[in-house]
Amino acid sequence: MNTIGQQFRLTTFGESHGTAIGGVIDGCPSQLHLDFGFIDSELQRRKTAQAPNASQRREPDRIEWLSGLMDGVTLGTPIAFLVRNEDCRSEDYEAMKDVFRPSHADFTYQQKYGIRDWRGGGRASARTTLPVVVAGAIAKQILKPLGIEIVAEVAAMGDAEQARREGDTVGGIAECRILGVPAGLGEPMFNKYSAALAHAMFSIPAVKGFEVGDGFALAAMKGTEANDTFINRDEGLGTSGHETAGHGTITTLTNHSGGIQGGISNGNEVVFRVAFKPIPSVGMGDRHDVCALPRALVIVEALAAMVTMDMKWMMR
Amino acid sequence: MNTIGQQFRLTTFGESHGTAIGGVIDGCPSQLHLDFGFIDSELQRRKTAQAPNASQRREPDRIEWLSGLMDGVTLGTPIAFLVRNEDCRSEDYEAMKDVFRPSHADFTYQQKYGIRDWRGGGRASARTTLPVVVAGAIAKQILKPLGIEIVAEVAAMGDAEQARREGDTVGGIAECRILGVPAGLGEPMFNKYSAALAHAMFSIPAVKGFEVGDGFALAAMKGTEANDTFINRDEGLGTSGHETAGHGTITTLTNHSGGIQGGISNGNEVVFRVAFKPIPSVGMGDRHDVCALPRALVIVEALAAMVTMDMKWMMR
Amino acid sequence: MNTIGQQFRLTTFGESHGTAIGGVIDGCPSQLHLDFGFIDSELQRRKTAQAPNASQRREPDRIEWLSGLMDGVTLGTPIAFLVRNEDCRSEDYEAMKDVFRPSHADFTYQQKYGIRDWRGGGRASARTTLPVVVAGAIAKQILKPLGIEIVAEVAAMGDAEQARREGDTVGGIAECRILGVPAGLGEPMFNKYSAALAHAMFSIPAVKGFEVGDGFALAAMKGTEANDTFINRDEGLGTSGHETAGHGTITTLTNHSGGIQGGISNGNEVVFRVAFKPIPSVGMGDRHDVCALPRALVIVEALAAMVTMDMKWMMR
Amino acid sequence: MNTIGQQFRLTTFGESHGTAIGGVIDGCPSQLHLDFGFIDSELQRRKTAQAPNASQRREPDRIEWLSGLMDGVTLGTPIAFLVRNEDCRSEDYEAMKDVFRPSHADFTYQQKYGIRDWRGGGRASARTTLPVVVAGAIAKQILKPLGIEIVAEVAAMGDAEQARREGDTVGGIAECRILGVPAGLGEPMFNKYSAALAHAMFSIPAVKGFEVGDGFALAAMKGTEANDTFINRDEGLGTSGHETAGHGTITTLTNHSGGIQGGISNGNEVVFRVAFKPIPSVGMGDRHDVCALPRALVIVEALAAMVTMDMKWMMR
Repeated sequence: MNTIGQQFRLTTFGESHGTAIGGVIDGCPSQLHLDFGFIDSELQRRKTAQAPNASQRREPDRIEWLSGLMDGVTLGTPIAFLVRNEDCRSEDYEAMKDVFRPSHADFTYQQKYGIRDWRGGGRASARTTLPVVVAGAIAKQILKPLGIEIVAEVAAMGDAEQARREGDTVGGIAECRILGVPAGLGEPMFNKYSAALAHAMFSIPAVKGFEVGDGFALAAMKGTEANDTFINRDEGLGTSGHETAGHGTITTLTNHSGGIQGGISNGNEVVFRVAFKPIPSVGMGDRHDVCALPRALVIVEALAAMVTMDMKWMMR
Repeated sequence: MNTIGQQFRLTTFGESHGTAIGGVIDGCPSQLHLDFGFIDSELQRRKTAQAPNASQRREPDRIEWLSGLMDGVTLGTPIAFLVRNEDCRSEDYEAMKDVFRPSHADFTYQQKYGIRDWRGGGRASARTTLPVVVAGAIAKQILKPLGIEIVAEVAAMGDAEQARREGDTVGGIAECRILGVPAGLGEPMFNKYSAALAHAMFSIPAVKGFEVGDGFALAAMKGTEANDTFINRDEGLGTSGHETAGHGTITTLTNHSGGIQGGISNGNEVVFRVAFKPIPSVGMGDRHDVCALPRALVIVEALAAMVTMDMKWMMR
Repeated sequence: MNTIGQQFRLTTFGESHGTAIGGVIDGCPSQLHLDFGFIDSELQRRKTAQAPNASQRREPDRIEWLSGLMDGVTLGTPIAFLVRNEDCRSEDYEAMKDVFRPSHADFTYQQKYGIRDWRGGGRASARTTLPVVVAGAIAKQILKPLGIEIVAEVAAMGDAEQARREGDTVGGIAECRILGVPAGLGEPMFNKYSAALAHAMFSIPAVKGFEVGDGFALAAMKGTEANDTFINRDEGLGTSGHETAGHGTITTLTNHSGGIQGGISNGNEVVFRVAFKPIPSVGMGDRHDVCALPRALVIVEALAAMVTMDMKWMMR
Repeated sequence: MNTIGQQFRLTTFGESHGTAIGGVIDGCPSQLHLDFGFIDSELQRRKTAQAPNASQRREPDRIEWLSGLMDGVTLGTPIAFLVRNEDCRSEDYEAMKDVFRPSHADFTYQQKYGIRDWRGGGRASARTTLPVVVAGAIAKQILKPLGIEIVAEVAAMGDAEQARREGDTVGGIAECRILGVPAGLGEPMFNKYSAALAHAMFSIPAVKGFEVGDGFALAAMKGTEANDTFINRDEGLGTSGHETAGHGTITTLTNHSGGIQGGISNGNEVVFRVAFKPIPSVGMGDRHDVCALPRALVIVEALAAMVTMDMKWMMR
């Protein structure tokens, strides 16, 4: 429920204005020298994004490592960490206690649990993505020597500066590419690579859509337009798009499929997009973001890295 | 891997041209009188859809029930069932043995397993969705007395008749509504209702996109346009869209969120859309579908029912 | 619930007098040539054991393979199989319908599910161990080339022949050795090798006790008697029983620990014992076993093989 | 791997001489007022047990609550907590760095991970049971209003005082009773109540045996001696030990089965025993325990409570 992953697993905990936010990573390989500088730089991407459309909360996001490490090297045992919540002026949120803000999770949490931490969004705050970034940074560090890199960028976004002046907020779309994925990752039936990515991305607050490759645009294409012809890089283009099984590196000439076919990676770039709704906190002025997207890019990458770790380890 | 669900779980098995296709349902409540007529009618929806753009394969899809029932009543033990594959002219597919068809799963299966059943798509065939329809029909039967109904329809689709004449295929979009869902379903962090639906829908062959509520369109909206104002059906509209916690039935005036906020159902209709790419088998003539969508509607509904069963049972 | 294993997973189904008993194996490696003769011989061990204290039920236990194979080779997809129940004279059991037999599962099933298949024990019948033997035979076939073999034998058993004459039954103890296990298998905290073996063995009907190595006898020993001194096979005995980390093959001189320390295999033989209570069906004459143990040996081995498969694959 | 439980789940972290030991509880019901005094008293049972055969380590075991609570009331979100390790004189353990102590986990951890925290046993230290006691105390608090109580006591133990004088250690056997368990708990096939208890108990360091009811003694009995006759408390003893299904409270006259039949609770007391080997650290003088058993009783109870929570919630 608060755990994601099968082999490389992250359990997160914490409310926005509780004592701390943190996580436990289970299944991280042993003997890995953690690159703490990289982890911090990833956290910084989540926190500030590009000014001025980023939240102004000033928590330092200093990680306290609790276990799983000796002299900065992983032991194979659970890696627990936390970041304390220092900027906890609960009184700022006193007014939230008795209202359900539109399109927030106030009402649904209340319905589910019969109680909620109303301070700063509680468990539904975007701050709860912090542990995801930490785990993602470690996953990236493991994937990089395997030749796998992950890059997310803004594919579309509303006019943030105008929205800020109007006290409004905007949505946007992130596009993410996973480079260097070998063919053969993904479980073909109920844990397809695409399905695991979709599941993970919908864990990010404000996400309302997900597509792989050409996605929704494929729904308007014909088969002859949408199909990706196989080519053999070593032997040249196959006759009529069908490629005989044999030697040589096979890939696809186009990538409408986004690198995934039948739920399994085909060796081409894995490409997907994630739609973010506008932040629902309108009329809030300086204290809140105008758009979740810039800060969310590193979260998208982090979850993509964690999903890929799991797929990688599940290979037979 | 071949199992979906936490409490109401389906494990499927079978290749298109192997001995049989089937499944095992674990976690079905006991003392349920199965409505076999309804299950058959759902299977019929999967099989024929509307002519003439449906596949012509004539397997009878007669279910053989293996366990978990006594006199048609569930025992609480695993319900296993199978449908035999009768129309197995393997020689029709002999030519597939050594080629990787574009945008099919031939290549990726070969890469993952080093072997594949090349007859009729093997495990990647759409025929493997048959057990999903069976489990979904049972889930629907359980949900119906709880007031929950699920309806999927075609929201968009290419011109099938023209494509058929051209030996081409088309894609489309399914829209699904889950009616009667109480507020409070869904795990808020890593198993959000939306995330579980996304994961399930990406299990369907040819699916490349998923969105909840206004989905990708939300990415182009402003917060003031996208927010769903809460109303109290018993007390009337709340001031300024904020609704105080209290008595009365609370719901939202609009439903841009698609009935899910913070990953948890809010009591409004759950609405989502699923994008299907065109079937990659082009130039096949009568034997194959021109569009997967008409047959896929019942599969979309089945998976939505199964996911909702799981969410229902996880309520505290 | 009806599934065992993490990576190499078996889901079983079936009641004693329903249509069929069977299972689905998920996670079996691809490209394995199944040895059907071996599987049949293992099933035969489960069925007949040594006469005359074995059950007289004459079902042929002919396996019908449903999926996951092409020309006898595994595809990496789920392997489903069933054995039909042919000897289903339900009327023999009509008297069971309204009684709860002592020390059987009649009462507890009724309490749990509000319904039960009262014919021949239903889901609680020892016949439900049949799929375990099939999966175990496949696991053994995978482990053997890795140098891992599993042998269970009767360590203690009551006087079966006398009990038969008296219309009574007896219990016994099975001892099992897993040979060739490399050091390093097992998750140290909540899925210790020993814990996984215990969990699996308690799945067998009539099992009431489990111990590893010297087990309960260790509770009466002193530390100086119970400790297993490490030796370096290449360098000779270490000073004072402590062995410096270094080169050479390290093992233990004695094996009070049964090959498992801190939940992880230490490279010595894994040894455990399983206590079976007497079969509760007394006064039944020829139709039932006098002791479950002889038939259970192959089941003990099968589960040990499946657990070891899972531990093997979880190695980092 | 470091998580136990299905619905009420505990993930633990921490090494003996790392920064902290702790855990995350997921699936705890919301709106529960935690009894912190009770939790502390349970921790105290784990820490001191009866003098003087208890370890002298003086860490205060002060719990820092990180999340999941507001004003001491559970939110339904993950409850994270930690206890700092204050008494970390690593130099005391410097000599452990290069040796594998007999019957400890030094060697097996090194083999599994290629690295280990050699300070005070690292992750294999008994100190890692601390989070189990915390989670167990919360589970007990939930079970108590349901009428379920759990009591473990020493059933057998070597002469601790003599062993201490000799610089030796002793083993022992714990007996645990779960009172007030309703009939119907437990999954009958692969997650029997007995199997889940066995699995949990083998998580405790030094455990080498587990038995339910009369356990290993049953292996030497005849069926006529071992069977538990059903009685109807309201209607009196049934004829010939068979009880017709009907009204009234049914239980068993004897309890050789230990309250579990076919893997499911039968309404009688659940009784089990756990065998502990002697602590392997011999010749250590005052700093270490002579016997793990007195301190382990609260751990046995804690795990029994957690398992019962899971079984309780899985009821249909």
